[in-house]
Amino acid sequence: MFNWLLIFVPICIAVEHFYPQQHLLVFLTACVAVLPLAGWMSRATEQLAERTGEGIGGLLNATFGNAAELIIAFAALRAGLHDVVKASIAGSIIGNILLVLGAAMLAGGLRHPEQTYNAAGTRSQATLLTLSAIALVLPAAYSAAAGRGTTESIQGQAVGMHEVVLLSVSIAVVLLAVYGAFLVFSLITHSTLFVGSVEHADTGDTPPPWPMQKSLLILAAATVAIAWVSEVLVGAIEPTAHEFGLSSVFVGVFVVAILGNAAEHASAISAAMKNHMDLSLAIAIGSSVQVALFVAPVLVLASLWVGPAPMDLVFPGGLVATVLLSVLVTGQVAGDGRSDWLRGVLLLAVYLIFGMAFFFVPGVPGH
Amino acid sequence: MFNWLLIFVPICIAVEHFYPQQHLLVFLTACVAVLPLAGWMSRATEQLAERTGEGIGGLLNATFGNAAELIIAFAALRAGLHDVVKASIAGSIIGNILLVLGAAMLAGGLRHPEQTYNAAGTRSQATLLTLSAIALVLPAAYSAAAGRGTTESIQGQAVGMHEVVLLSVSIAVVLLAVYGAFLVFSLITHSTLFVGSVEHADTGDTPPPWPMQKSLLILAAATVAIAWVSEVLVGAIEPTAHEFGLSSVFVGVFVVAILGNAAEHASAISAAMKNHMDLSLAIAIGSSVQVALFVAPVLVLASLWVGPAPMDLVFPGGLVATVLLSVLVTGQVAGDGRSDWLRGVLLLAVYLIFGMAFFFVPGVPGH
Amino acid sequence: MFNWLLIFVPICIAVEHFYPQQHLLVFLTACVAVLPLAGWMSRATEQLAERTGEGIGGLLNATFGNAAELIIAFAALRAGLHDVVKASIAGSIIGNILLVLGAAMLAGGLRHPEQTYNAAGTRSQATLLTLSAIALVLPAAYSAAAGRGTTESIQGQAVGMHEVVLLSVSIAVVLLAVYGAFLVFSLITHSTLFVGSVEHADTGDTPPPWPMQKSLLILAAATVAIAWVSEVLVGAIEPTAHEFGLSSVFVGVFVVAILGNAAEHASAISAAMKNHMDLSLAIAIGSSVQVALFVAPVLVLASLWVGPAPMDLVFPGGLVATVLLSVLVTGQVAGDGRSDWLRGVLLLAVYLIFGMAFFFVPGVPGH
Repeated sequence: MFNWLLIFVPICIAVEHFYPQQHLLVFLTACVAVLPLAGWMSRATEQLAERTGEGIGGLLNATFGNAAELIIAFAALRAGLHDVVKASIAGSIIGNILLVLGAAMLAGGLRHPEQTYNAAGTRSQATLLTLSAIALVLPAAYSAAAGRGTTESIQGQAVGMHEVVLLSVSIAVVLLAVYGAFLVFSLITHSTLFVGSVEHADTGDTPPPWPMQKSLLILAAATVAIAWVSEVLVGAIEPTAHEFGLSSVFVGVFVVAILGNAAEHASAISAAMKNHMDLSLAIAIGSSVQVALFVAPVLVLASLWVGPAPMDLVFPGGLVATVLLSVLVTGQVAGDGRSDWLRGVLLLAVYLIFGMAFFFVPGVPGH
Repeated sequence: MFNWLLIFVPICIAVEHFYPQQHLLVFLTACVAVLPLAGWMSRATEQLAERTGEGIGGLLNATFGNAAELIIAFAALRAGLHDVVKASIAGSIIGNILLVLGAAMLAGGLRHPEQTYNAAGTRSQATLLTLSAIALVLPAAYSAAAGRGTTESIQGQAVGMHEVVLLSVSIAVVLLAVYGAFLVFSLITHSTLFVGSVEHADTGDTPPPWPMQKSLLILAAATVAIAWVSEVLVGAIEPTAHEFGLSSVFVGVFVVAILGNAAEHASAISAAMKNHMDLSLAIAIGSSVQVALFVAPVLVLASLWVGPAPMDLVFPGGLVATVLLSVLVTGQVAGDGRSDWLRGVLLLAVYLIFGMAFFFVPGVPGH
Repeated sequence: MFNWLLIFVPICIAVEHFYPQQHLLVFLTACVAVLPLAGWMSRATEQLAERTGEGIGGLLNATFGNAAELIIAFAALRAGLHDVVKASIAGSIIGNILLVLGAAMLAGGLRHPEQTYNAAGTRSQATLLTLSAIALVLPAAYSAAAGRGTTESIQGQAVGMHEVVLLSVSIAVVLLAVYGAFLVFSLITHSTLFVGSVEHADTGDTPPPWPMQKSLLILAAATVAIAWVSEVLVGAIEPTAHEFGLSSVFVGVFVVAILGNAAEHASAISAAMKNHMDLSLAIAIGSSVQVALFVAPVLVLASLWVGPAPMDLVFPGGLVATVLLSVLVTGQVAGDGRSDWLRGVLLLAVYLIFGMAFFFVPGVPGH
């Protein structure tokens, strides 16, 4: 229904070509252009999943569900903007469990006084998030303990922190292995705990899935287009942030991350309003889990070949604390199988004060 | 039943007038004088609430329930003693959820092997506390990240931290908005979850409420008296602490905060012994919520007009960690709807070791 | 069944006598020699407990269950290796709740799709662990706040931190008092919550317990032998670690701690595979509780008389964070009365990434 936004794809490329100094305009048009593309990618993935059967379909959804974010992050990785990559990883994690889940709980809670869901599946995912939060804490803690500062230079030039990169790569491998275990758990051995998340489409009168060729064609086209737009978007982040005195961390955490998750926002809220809280939580928390256990480690490993220098998992202190506290709050809010509108307000309030704190951080380079 | 303690109101004022150098004596008599006044204030508020009907009555209780603490903190704010204000805010939060709740669980648990309560309401309040703990963490983290030190000078002279004040004011507004949402939630849309907290007086043979004029008169008289005594008390904190080599933080956290909550102590313990754990938890945790989401932001906003300089929300690192850990423990202890005496011992032990840690902090100015 | 390993007791002593420069060989033979001795100690304690009746038996198990760890730590204390003592305390706490519990949940979960246990008893113990984690955080936080650095010199020479030692001793006394309260709770007033932990042996066809003299004799012999081997082991830690470029913290956390808990590993896994999750959790979490609330404070108090200088509770920052995060994860994983293999994988993954982080810390003296 947002198909007309696709017009922004050529617009943003044209603006970037003819008015390269209009950073804000480039940035905004690229932002808008990402939205319909991300929507089409996730729709094509779902349709493909319908055709391939439940097991492989679940795997497809789990792997390509965050493809848009992955592609944007890749563009930033190639440009050596490690701070932006890290900010968008952290922003995506907290965006899904605070903003998306908060909005879903609020919207659902305004219609239904009390909503319930399967606490066991939620707890498993919340625990995976805690694991990944710990995984993000350790390199920063190690780096701080080793007394070498926690920020890389903005150009992404690694400053000889050989052990930190080794540690980050090792942790990335462990996270991917745990993600593999989680897929086996949720798709094979304990799939009954995660009913809602697989059956995305069982809400009433579903049309037959697309033919496979159509899905693949749309997926390919959207991937190419989003990769192109991402380059434009990423190139405009730094100058736009600079122009407005914002830090690129703020832009990464609160702008880039929201764009990449716009499709999840819409689905999770709509599911909550239909009182399908299991599905709503599966989308919101599941997206965070995917980013933390799949997107983040893939980017670390990819950085060994892509971009000017290997990216470590040393997140700036503020981001680490933000992720850790967000995961804590979500575990508390979503741990007992019930939900109401106040919990939605709470999650949104936490997101808001995080946003305010990052907003006031001055836009100095390298932060 | 502590009415004879009212004699300490004139005594403390007289001592302060005739022996201004006897800091300890001034401090102690002021401390004792606060107790009966705070008791009368909370009783008059309750009586007023009975007359005004449930909705407005709940609002009155929620707003003026911590009036004594608010007035003492105001006196410290006017004197520019921001460290004392912050210490008494933090002390009030942890005092209610560790000391008051611990004593209540211990006293109740010694009489009843296992006590139960509604976990859903408790979880909502515990989550509100987590939100407020995060709200207190952020300015300190921001301030530390900005490399400007986390302590204000004792004279309350703001050291040009414009952004920190802006951030603190923004957070204060969010906290007040969440508190408003919580009032709507607990008094209107989900009042059934909080039965105990509103019906303070339904424990047996309750006499008819006082006439409205009587309540208002007593409230007014007690407010004036407590405001006077608070000035005396606050003026004596620094020199007394100095005399004994204690930090004013210790005095604020563990002395001033206990005084302001003495009434809650008594009610929460008595409710627990009667096996009314819902009421007991509502008093203890609810008081902390009020301080964190209402008293603290009101003081921040008031400091824009009252006192020598605006007060920020940058709590010293030790206090932030203390509040965060206390909230964590309470969430763990009170999250499953049951209680026993060992949990009471645990909360008291945590309070005790916090007290010991702050006791050993030397009484240097500005800490 | 590992009795033939006893041959390593004389071997390690011989190697240490004749080839004192072969540090690695001395270290490895001492490690292996500890295993059967620790096994015999815990078996003799259990047999003694059977004879003495349930109350005193429970007390014996609770007090001497970690005797092997206590003796090894004593040897390190006498040698003034405070860093090793602290590392083995922290390693023992996290080893039991991450490695032992993780392996048990994984092994049990591979056989049984979903396992259940009494959540109330587990929550009590998890809360005790949170208390002890807080107790370990405070001296480090205090020490950092006081700006005197958090590491002692490796020779164990206290650097005039009088208040930190006082604080540590006070906290140790509180922890022992809470442990006493926990024993009263679990053995007397609420023993029904902890059925599994006391009746270690009720799994089928138990033979009659040994005669008391036999138990005492074996206990005495094993204690003497383990004390001897511990001296050898501890003496070899530093040079071995140095030789391999590892920190003594890594060796303490991940080698010494695993050795001292080998017996618990075996019992907890075997209980989980038999679907006795209550017993399995009681062994794993209970062991951590014993180390945190009994072994650690006893060592602090003992250091006032044993060894070159009093030992404080100032754990290096990395260890404090490790313990705190481990306790958090365990509370989340084991708080709802159910278990599956993915949770086991999660706990093991957390343990693994902690191990990797400490592995990369360079083996500088004093760290």
